[in-house]
Amino acid sequence: MVKASEICRGFECRINFPDGISKVLVPERMSQSRVCRGSHGFVKKLLSKFWGLNKETWNLAMNEPKKLIHGFKVGMALSLVSLFYYMKPLYEGIGGNAMWAVLTVIVVFEYTVGATLSKCLNKAAGTFLAGVLGIGVHWIARQFGQKFEPVILQGSVCIISAAATFSRFIPSIKAQFDYGVLVFILTICFITVSGYRVENLLELALHRLSTIAIGSSICILTSMLFCPVWAGNELHNLIRNNMEKLADSLDGCIAQYFGCDINSNNTQSETSNNILLGYKCVLDSRDTEESLANFARWEPAHRGFNFGHPWKEYLKVGASLRSCAYCIKALNCTIDSGAQGPDILKNHFSKCCIKLSSNSSAVLKELVVVMDTMTKSPKIDFKVSEMCSAVQEVQNALKALSKQPIANPTIISLTEVIPLVTLSSLLIEIAGITGKIAKDVNGFANKA
Amino acid sequence: MVKASEICRGFECRINFPDGISKVLVPERMSQSRVCRGSHGFVKKLLSKFWGLNKETWNLAMNEPKKLIHGFKVGMALSLVSLFYYMKPLYEGIGGNAMWAVLTVIVVFEYTVGATLSKCLNKAAGTFLAGVLGIGVHWIARQFGQKFEPVILQGSVCIISAAATFSRFIPSIKAQFDYGVLVFILTICFITVSGYRVENLLELALHRLSTIAIGSSICILTSMLFCPVWAGNELHNLIRNNMEKLADSLDGCIAQYFGCDINSNNTQSETSNNILLGYKCVLDSRDTEESLANFARWEPAHRGFNFGHPWKEYLKVGASLRSCAYCIKALNCTIDSGAQGPDILKNHFSKCCIKLSSNSSAVLKELVVVMDTMTKSPKIDFKVSEMCSAVQEVQNALKALSKQPIANPTIISLTEVIPLVTLSSLLIEIAGITGKIAKDVNGFANKA
Repeated sequence: MVKASEICRGFECRINFPDGISKVLVPERMSQSRVCRGSHGFVKKLLSKFWGLNKETWNLAMNEPKKLIHGFKVGMALSLVSLFYYMKPLYEGIGGNAMWAVLTVIVVFEYTVGATLSKCLNKAAGTFLAGVLGIGVHWIARQFGQKFEPVILQGSVCIISAAATFSRFIPSIKAQFDYGVLVFILTICFITVSGYRVENLLELALHRLSTIAIGSSICILTSMLFCPVWAGNELHNLIRNNMEKLADSLDGCIAQYFGCDINSNNTQSETSNNILLGYKCVLDSRDTEESLANFARWEPAHRGFNFGHPWKEYLKVGASLRSCAYCIKALNCTIDSGAQGPDILKNHFSKCCIKLSSNSSAVLKELVVVMDTMTKSPKIDFKVSEMCSAVQEVQNALKALSKQPIANPTIISLTEVIPLVTLSSLLIEIAGITGKIAKDVNGFANKA
Repeated sequence: MVKASEICRGFECRINFPDGISKVLVPERMSQSRVCRGSHGFVKKLLSKFWGLNKETWNLAMNEPKKLIHGFKVGMALSLVSLFYYMKPLYEGIGGNAMWAVLTVIVVFEYTVGATLSKCLNKAAGTFLAGVLGIGVHWIARQFGQKFEPVILQGSVCIISAAATFSRFIPSIKAQFDYGVLVFILTICFITVSGYRVENLLELALHRLSTIAIGSSICILTSMLFCPVWAGNELHNLIRNNMEKLADSLDGCIAQYFGCDINSNNTQSETSNNILLGYKCVLDSRDTEESLANFARWEPAHRGFNFGHPWKEYLKVGASLRSCAYCIKALNCTIDSGAQGPDILKNHFSKCCIKLSSNSSAVLKELVVVMDTMTKSPKIDFKVSEMCSAVQEVQNALKALSKQPIANPTIISLTEVIPLVTLSSLLIEIAGITGKIAKDVNGFANKA
């Protein structure tokens, strides 16, 4: 027996045009199913995005639990400050203005202590300056009588905020006082605009200052007392880790080229590839270093760093590390280009090149120890001199290559020599930069 | 006659110690003068800093008048929104809540239209989500009776704000919704904390939404109607200018090495040095490019760019330009190292190297024209093929060098050959990257 659904499936609507062409009309259900498929795809895409976000969140929480703790610190500070609302005796003291304390906590609380301190100081300075200026503008405007008062107020809001907004583009102000200027604009508007309909302006300003002080002090105390994250310490660790990454990257690079395995325990290719590309992190860390150094200046003494620790020196070391990373990048490009050079030359160079690179990375690793202890290591001078003698060896090998008509000049052409010569000269440059880094790090390890 | 002052000047206080040493006591006036000198130095330093800031401001205003105009746009928007306070009929409509509109303008108004739009959308979405969630939390808390209400509210503020703060560290959220999450936290605190002592919560939420809408629309209108700065346009110009800088930098570099003067009109050494170092700007522009591309996506059609213009492609071109800049940096290092190579070789290479570099820079300059007109230039294919044949010539020169036992092998050693070989291989790489850039730029010029 033929079922009704099968008849339905066999049925088609065909239109025959006069010119002999015939076209099948697609039943509506088919386009409905397309809609269905489309929305199905959309839901699938959404779910996969959500899943990706979930994974990203989980990884972040596992790798950097300090950031999770920061979240809870903010929550704690907010529930502390909200007590001013919930508890009657406290509420009667401050009243509705307590909201400003809550807002202050949300806006001012940053990840590192230095950033929080810098924002608090910026907020206090901006509010104070704008307060004084605002009350002055009000006094002047009031002298012009009730008719002209709003005109003068509006004009001054326009001019002052235009000038302040423009000043935020000036590099030296942007780097340190960007938030301060924003608060300045906020406060001056608050005073000149809303002050127009407030009787006792001075009281309003004092109230606002006191709530800001409450919010700021809760922020500073929470960020300094519970698992504090010091910008200085973060900067120190960043530079230290970058050194380690470069050392590993250099080792991995040379091991790959000469086919030897310096770290025999790295069996997985994915891990070793990650190590090899460690230099990329170093190339991208300039902005982070600069902002951390900026915030570290505000921090009190902590974990062996005094107030006034030479944080600027770290930026110098960071710049040298980046130059070193550029060289490793060039090294990687040379290796990736596939130009290997003849085996006879590779053997000629391999010993001294491997020695030089492992000596350079040993100096970098010793500097990591110096950074960890912040005292000059007794081994460092010896290792640097070892590196220098390795440089000499590579240079000798290059000279020997250039002077002798290498074995048989018809077999080995210049283009074959190039990759090895490039590699050795890059290694020599890396050793030079490493020597400079060693000098700088020893310099500030002595100062500290 | 001896004057009293002279007697005074001749007078000195000397202490004789028992061991024969005598010491002159310095009168107080002398240390006072030291204080004077110290404060004089301080004032001088302050004045010089002030003078430096003044100069910086002036230069910024002259070089980028658009930023000055932005300042005035913000001032204008603020005086517009402050009308809600100063004009009685408007004030009676909104009342004290008008302050939120002022605050919105200050916080949301950004330099480019795209950034302003993105912040407005973030603000609206954050406020709306937090509003819904906040009212829900309130309703639940109220079910637990008056005693437990503040406890539940405080607990939920703590947990929600902790989770939201942590989410700001997730890269994909940080890149696009950082401000939205901040507003979410602000609003949820505002509703759950201050809402505790407010009777009609829904009215409060609606009032706040309406003031945000007023502030946002004033921002959007002002930023779009008066001298708008489009993020897309800025990105386009940034990439275009970077291309031009690289072309000039490459020309200057090669001219310096081979001692020829391609641009004979650049007589001043300072100007030519600036041009030479143009590649540094390209190395530093990654972050700017990424944020501009992020904002450009929100912008409506403007100046020949449709909504949905392939802004992501610009990032690819930007990355290629940076690779090219790395090569030019390496070129500069080779030249700065002072290794010149013997004249006989320099002559052997100079013609084809100069040809290759000028061909590469010609392609880049032609691409600047393509970017200006956003249509495929008829000359570009010809110039690219010219560049390819120049690459072939340099490769032939290298091969010739490696096959022949160069003139007299005892005179020219390998170390002398290296700088020229490095230079030619860098030029070949630059040509390769330029070819890729040409392909990408033509690709999106066709799409647009």
